[in-house]
Amino acid sequence: MTLNLTAAIDLKYLLYICDMIGVGVFAITGGLMAARKGMDIFGFMVLGIVTAIGGGTTRDLILGLPVFWIEDPNYLLVATIAGGAMFFLGHVFSSLTRTLLWLDAAGMALFAVAGAGWAIAKDAPLSIVLFMGVVTACGGGMIRDVLAREVPLVFQREIYAIAALAGAATYGLLVFYTNFGAWAMTAGGAVAFIIRGLAIHFDLSLPVYQTKDMRK
Amino acid sequence: MTLNLTAAIDLKYLLYICDMIGVGVFAITGGLMAARKGMDIFGFMVLGIVTAIGGGTTRDLILGLPVFWIEDPNYLLVATIAGGAMFFLGHVFSSLTRTLLWLDAAGMALFAVAGAGWAIAKDAPLSIVLFMGVVTACGGGMIRDVLAREVPLVFQREIYAIAALAGAATYGLLVFYTNFGAWAMTAGGAVAFIIRGLAIHFDLSLPVYQTKDMRK
Amino acid sequence: MTLNLTAAIDLKYLLYICDMIGVGVFAITGGLMAARKGMDIFGFMVLGIVTAIGGGTTRDLILGLPVFWIEDPNYLLVATIAGGAMFFLGHVFSSLTRTLLWLDAAGMALFAVAGAGWAIAKDAPLSIVLFMGVVTACGGGMIRDVLAREVPLVFQREIYAIAALAGAATYGLLVFYTNFGAWAMTAGGAVAFIIRGLAIHFDLSLPVYQTKDMRK
Repeated sequence: MTLNLTAAIDLKYLLYICDMIGVGVFAITGGLMAARKGMDIFGFMVLGIVTAIGGGTTRDLILGLPVFWIEDPNYLLVATIAGGAMFFLGHVFSSLTRTLLWLDAAGMALFAVAGAGWAIAKDAPLSIVLFMGVVTACGGGMIRDVLAREVPLVFQREIYAIAALAGAATYGLLVFYTNFGAWAMTAGGAVAFIIRGLAIHFDLSLPVYQTKDMRK
Repeated sequence: MTLNLTAAIDLKYLLYICDMIGVGVFAITGGLMAARKGMDIFGFMVLGIVTAIGGGTTRDLILGLPVFWIEDPNYLLVATIAGGAMFFLGHVFSSLTRTLLWLDAAGMALFAVAGAGWAIAKDAPLSIVLFMGVVTACGGGMIRDVLAREVPLVFQREIYAIAALAGAATYGLLVFYTNFGAWAMTAGGAVAFIIRGLAIHFDLSLPVYQTKDMRK
Repeated sequence: MTLNLTAAIDLKYLLYICDMIGVGVFAITGGLMAARKGMDIFGFMVLGIVTAIGGGTTRDLILGLPVFWIEDPNYLLVATIAGGAMFFLGHVFSSLTRTLLWLDAAGMALFAVAGAGWAIAKDAPLSIVLFMGVVTACGGGMIRDVLAREVPLVFQREIYAIAALAGAATYGLLVFYTNFGAWAMTAGGAVAFIIRGLAIHFDLSLPVYQTKDMRK
């Protein structure tokens, strides 16, 4: 992915496209969860929507910003269509698990730096910047899992939130302590994507808490 | 239900009464869920409150409006009393299921157009108007089901959200594309109520996603 | 606990320390829940954070206030560290259940009056003041239980929310109807703590709804 940083309009357009891809992929994971739970088409749409825009909405509410998808209906439309389409195409997409994992990693990386970026724009301290990166990247999936009555995936082994955290940290630290602000977002997104990608490729996971009973 | 549209004060008063009936009925469904789960009286009150005001609160937060029940304590009082009363009267009301279904349909229709109306007042695009109608009408019930550890009812077969969507769409389209704005709210509410009513009367439901295992 | 009310700075400092103790204790209960569910360290941190700041965040969003922990990163840091530490120290703390119960009671009492206080500062009516006291004290624990897929503890027998309500009511009534505003917060906190303390010491609980099947 080559970014022509001098052509600001092209970059913005490219980021918008990336954003929509992230929304679409997240909505697809919501729809696939609805398929697993045997929901009706409305359930597919709602799980698609909350997964795609839940994290960013939580971020905006906490930071006191206008909710990002109110002004631009495309976010809601893409999420509704992508989630609802799984009602008819779910069996096709479940065989694409591997492809989806990589697209989802791209969406996560993008959302992590977008979330961190909004906190930076609000002059928030570094800890809030990191938190907002994680919330934006992981919040939607957490709401999806709660609505589908699952213990959120990101709490269990998955190297996912930690990748979002690393991406937001890279971005935040570069902005706070260096002059490379212009490249910071790209670097942060790359770090998040690479960590998540390594976890997918080598099937890495975090250790979980062992109760005494389990240790025996 | 005859609405005297020339007497604005009477209409407003009537709408307020309808609003309170909606809040009360939604709170009762929250209380009945608490009864099914064997909760204490506080659980009845909380489930009553979240069911009655959860949808409208979500709408107000997303649209950046002041939360509707902060200024007028009656909403909270009605919801608390209606939900809490089920602790003592739950067994009576569970035999009134049919009546409650119809009252709930009226509450849903009213909340759908109220939600859409607030989005219209914020000059939101049509897709947001529809979404807000559905959120206001269905959000409270979804939060109730999540707190009671159920997969939200509206995700499964129930022709409920689709009725709210149709009502909000009727209202929104009339406002956006015609001069019949004054009647639009009534028409939208009627459409939502009639669709839901047909589903109740003829026991209609949406198809759900069939997994391959279930198809065999 | 002796409060020197003439030394405003010392009092504020003391309250801040109390606040942080409340945040830390609530985060520990979140971490212990993560231990019970066998989560990874990220799950510990997130459950710690939502338990500690979830109630106050909900209050701030509903009242339209800036979220309290955005300006002061210490809240987030204390919650993250206290929750995450349970990943390594969980087995130690589970043997301290009794101590934790008492610390948690202190946190609840403090959060109840803090929540009520913010509503009073917004000139909210009494019913909203009470509600905000309960939301601030119990909201975090409810979100924790939902994320961990448990029916919220406060809905079942526990004399917890009722203690928060009594504390907020004492505070609110003293402010609204007497001249003892300066002492009202202390009195409210004491009432909440004492009621909860009696429930812990004498193992008291609320009756739950009995279904017909259970009565037989």
